[in-house]
Amino acid sequence: MAAVKGASRLRFFTAWFCPYAQRAWIALNHHRIPYTPIEALSITEDKGYVKHPVLLQHNPKGLVPTILPAEAEEKGKGAAAPAVFESLLCIEFADEYANEKNLSNKPNLMPKGAFAKAQARIMASWVDRQICSPFYRVLIRKDQKERDDAFAELLANLRVFAKNIHPQGPFFYGTDLSIVDVALAPWAYRFYILEHYRGKGFGIPANDTTLSPYFRWYDAVVELPAVKDTLQDKKKLAAVYERYADASAKSMVGDAVRAGKEAHDI
Amino acid sequence: MAAVKGASRLRFFTAWFCPYAQRAWIALNHHRIPYTPIEALSITEDKGYVKHPVLLQHNPKGLVPTILPAEAEEKGKGAAAPAVFESLLCIEFADEYANEKNLSNKPNLMPKGAFAKAQARIMASWVDRQICSPFYRVLIRKDQKERDDAFAELLANLRVFAKNIHPQGPFFYGTDLSIVDVALAPWAYRFYILEHYRGKGFGIPANDTTLSPYFRWYDAVVELPAVKDTLQDKKKLAAVYERYADASAKSMVGDAVRAGKEAHDI
Repeated sequence: MAAVKGASRLRFFTAWFCPYAQRAWIALNHHRIPYTPIEALSITEDKGYVKHPVLLQHNPKGLVPTILPAEAEEKGKGAAAPAVFESLLCIEFADEYANEKNLSNKPNLMPKGAFAKAQARIMASWVDRQICSPFYRVLIRKDQKERDDAFAELLANLRVFAKNIHPQGPFFYGTDLSIVDVALAPWAYRFYILEHYRGKGFGIPANDTTLSPYFRWYDAVVELPAVKDTLQDKKKLAAVYERYADASAKSMVGDAVRAGKEAHDI
Repeated sequence: MAAVKGASRLRFFTAWFCPYAQRAWIALNHHRIPYTPIEALSITEDKGYVKHPVLLQHNPKGLVPTILPAEAEEKGKGAAAPAVFESLLCIEFADEYANEKNLSNKPNLMPKGAFAKAQARIMASWVDRQICSPFYRVLIRKDQKERDDAFAELLANLRVFAKNIHPQGPFFYGTDLSIVDVALAPWAYRFYILEHYRGKGFGIPANDTTLSPYFRWYDAVVELPAVKDTLQDKKKLAAVYERYADASAKSMVGDAVRAGKEAHDI
């Protein structure tokens, strides 16, 4: 990445395997915002995490993604740094930061106009709750019917997503990548993991014509440089989800979904 | 309100007793955005609601607040109108709509700057989950310990809010009203309802000095014209909450909290 004059490097607390962090990563890449990535979660032998101490200082839940200004002081040594977290908020932050610092020549990930902005926020949140969260129920719930129901829900909502993609495509709102695309992309890349752990009935059906706009969307999204740079080796990535699939994951998402809650509730 | 040239009147689906709708109402008032209020929920004898048919056409959950452009077509008769809902999103929408249409001479409810905007979104959502949602658990949960715990949580978080109010005040970020203030105001006005139904131990303690910035905040907020216009008669308002207090409310919030979920999960 070319050095950007006058811009300080944000500190980006991430985890290479985390799809929520990947949303922020794509958004930062999209605008070519200079950042220092910090791998902040190490998976331990007992399948929990050791979290980066600076992350824990600035984000009460210790979740990734978390973005800090470069000049952030450690807590207790100065003013508390304004940490940015919650993955969908990080996407909006990337737009606003890039505009403020004049960093980007790419279109914003948020559309223009008050009504369009509200729609995009509603739709990104819908994707988060209605498509991404069922993904974890398929993996983490132990009852076969609950897994079946979660996958049926995911698939039905993916069809709604497909139906609402702009007719010219390939992206949700047409030619430009948006917050709605970024909200789904990391999970779309991970759908193979469901089939890997749960078997044939849990693949996204490639011959389903109601999903054609989705497949076209997917092919376009993973080819974008901002996204391509964030895609991990599929075998290595699947291995991380074994902790969910055998219900041993000691993560906030694992605990929440085992307790009958949803991933978006943590 | 003075007529605003060239501006169409938004359609604002509301319910006079609903604190979520009140957030949008305050934000619309703040910017003097022209709107037509539509009372969209009628409480029925069996303590459920009859909902306005146009609301149900445009918002899948039939929740207030919902904002439609004046020119919105009924579904099936033209393009689907871009409905705006979710109360915190309505506050951001009010800022963006007022700016777009050049309607307001008031400061935005969102602060300036990428980091400050992200902080405001995080804080407004924190207020929603950590102060507003426990309010419903105090009223709706039947177990005394659950009620006690919910009120203790509400009070502890209200102290955190008080501690984080700008030292000069009176509002959260200082002299100007913001999304964080609007997020809390409707519940702050309703705290008397907890004492009304649950007894003396459920009042906000007036002599608690850790809450002094909060009381100063409250006095300033309820005196703002944009807020004052939205405040209902306290006796009439309390009566609406009897449905929650005797656990008979047939509302989405009532159902969710009875089922062990949180108000913010619906």
